[in-house]
Amino acid sequence: MGGQENKLNYPTIFLGIVFLVLTPVLSGCFGSQQAADPLPSWNEGQAKTSIVDFVQAVTDEAGPDFVPVPERIAVFDNDGTLWSEQPVYFQLTFAMDRVKELAPAHPEWKTTPPFQAALENDMSALIATGERGLLELIMATHAGMTTDEFAAIVDDWIGKARHPRFDRLYRDLVFQPMLELLDYLRANGFKTFIVSGGGIEFMRPWVEDVYGIPPEQVIGSRIKKVYEMRDSGPVIVRLAELDFIDDKEGKPVGIDNVIGRRPIAAFGNSDGDLQMLQWTAADTGRSLMGLIHHTDAEREWAYDRGSHIGGLDKALIEAVDKGWTVVDMKNDWGVIYPPVRNGEE
Amino acid sequence: MGGQENKLNYPTIFLGIVFLVLTPVLSGCFGSQQAADPLPSWNEGQAKTSIVDFVQAVTDEAGPDFVPVPERIAVFDNDGTLWSEQPVYFQLTFAMDRVKELAPAHPEWKTTPPFQAALENDMSALIATGERGLLELIMATHAGMTTDEFAAIVDDWIGKARHPRFDRLYRDLVFQPMLELLDYLRANGFKTFIVSGGGIEFMRPWVEDVYGIPPEQVIGSRIKKVYEMRDSGPVIVRLAELDFIDDKEGKPVGIDNVIGRRPIAAFGNSDGDLQMLQWTAADTGRSLMGLIHHTDAEREWAYDRGSHIGGLDKALIEAVDKGWTVVDMKNDWGVIYPPVRNGEE
Repeated sequence: MGGQENKLNYPTIFLGIVFLVLTPVLSGCFGSQQAADPLPSWNEGQAKTSIVDFVQAVTDEAGPDFVPVPERIAVFDNDGTLWSEQPVYFQLTFAMDRVKELAPAHPEWKTTPPFQAALENDMSALIATGERGLLELIMATHAGMTTDEFAAIVDDWIGKARHPRFDRLYRDLVFQPMLELLDYLRANGFKTFIVSGGGIEFMRPWVEDVYGIPPEQVIGSRIKKVYEMRDSGPVIVRLAELDFIDDKEGKPVGIDNVIGRRPIAAFGNSDGDLQMLQWTAADTGRSLMGLIHHTDAEREWAYDRGSHIGGLDKALIEAVDKGWTVVDMKNDWGVIYPPVRNGEE
Repeated sequence: MGGQENKLNYPTIFLGIVFLVLTPVLSGCFGSQQAADPLPSWNEGQAKTSIVDFVQAVTDEAGPDFVPVPERIAVFDNDGTLWSEQPVYFQLTFAMDRVKELAPAHPEWKTTPPFQAALENDMSALIATGERGLLELIMATHAGMTTDEFAAIVDDWIGKARHPRFDRLYRDLVFQPMLELLDYLRANGFKTFIVSGGGIEFMRPWVEDVYGIPPEQVIGSRIKKVYEMRDSGPVIVRLAELDFIDDKEGKPVGIDNVIGRRPIAAFGNSDGDLQMLQWTAADTGRSLMGLIHHTDAEREWAYDRGSHIGGLDKALIEAVDKGWTVVDMKNDWGVIYPPVRNGEE
């Protein structure tokens, strides 16, 4: 044995070193898809493993869990699952910003509870107005205009509004590991959908650019709309009346209305996602249910049960009970947000 | 000139004949996509030309009308546009067949107008019950069960129900030229959607197989549904209550709810499609509006203005006025239905 080792001479060692150095470089350039880590921002652990195992199983044509491409449907909650949602849903911040912009034309708002709270940035007073107050705020800021006009307003806001804690655009407070997961699933033949309690038309103007999800793959809450022929041509007008709430029991119904088949993968982060996860779990084939647990107060936020925004209680119990994939943000994610872009301050 | 001709000898002529014979054979095998006719069941004429011109224009990256792939959205009405609809919408035949099947459990139906008319195959009595009667018939046959149960009932019916005039399965009375058009558009990067006044869940079980349109690209009328957790697992139950009528002014709204961007191509056949065509025509870029005019009493049916089913009046006037593509079924279509399949009687 010792004699064998002595046979190694300098040229051999040199070649060995060259090989060791070049192998990762070459496999990075020319290696198979499997060799490169599709989820680099995910730390090694049970969550990452369960995702990769699932994708390999359903794409393995020779395996028992194979799922044909048209049936590879994956659904994602948005607030708290694809981007942050604290201290309040970003759409609520958008609505408050709209109230401030529209306030000069509405002097009465200074003394009307939800508007007054919005104008004074008094979050606890705003939340105290309850569902009814929030709805009033949404309707006053989201309705009474055409769909094109509303899309332009959202587009403008999402391009400039910044989160005070991070001083970054809200649209940049998306989760890098989830962007990788969306890409990874799509690279494996999945169609990715958003299924959010948020307003569908608050998301559509920017999610294609940010998440790679086209408008026709966005499901959300909706207000009523009506088609009108004007002198300038046809428009669709947004009415101050609820049409559909895509939350809790509404999520599987929204999925059924729009997609018309059962997802095989679903990710959420709150009790509002429980029914969507149950519906996905009840598939007869292999499926993946993921629950993002916000455990990182330092890099993002830590909250679950009892939180006004993104409350998570029953869904966490059921996830643990049923062996769903619970993502511990602090431990499972190496990175939270994408790097600051060139030119961004 | 005459001398030139005299120089042709037999070997030259032979080579010429070989060339003439081989050219079409070889171009059929190896020719470009453009060389093969993508719409062989369409007769040469203005309708076919306008379709091909449109597709070439929006796919020409160097041209002024280029449209990026994600925005290539094409919408199609179903009844009378993709398949026949006479003497009554095929979904109504389905409902009448269901009434007959369910009748033993409902002795009162024998004397209740819409059901009695259905049981007695009395089409004029059925139509005389009006919208309310038809709605009652639809609710009694389409609601009160889970989505999975309803899909199985549709699947069973569509696999065996035959049209009396042609003695062919209803699902085979689809228009061969439109199947070619759907394929042609998809081969050119279009996403094809159905936007029908018919029930969404009456279409989904079979349109993927027949038209190549997946369930998530089907928009239609809907009844309300509710998510329920049962001992056997979660289900979605169909309620006897209208949720959305995807017809007339409802079509652009349905498109906006589900697709969230404006189509650049739309095909319909009745006044119920007018608003969808207007909405498409109002696009700022190039768009294609098609109207199928049923003019072939011999091979299919001839009807337009005043027809109870598929009435076409205002939309035809506007189509002619605006220069939309009016498809004259008798003259523009060389074939109506696909050939009878092997094994079919």
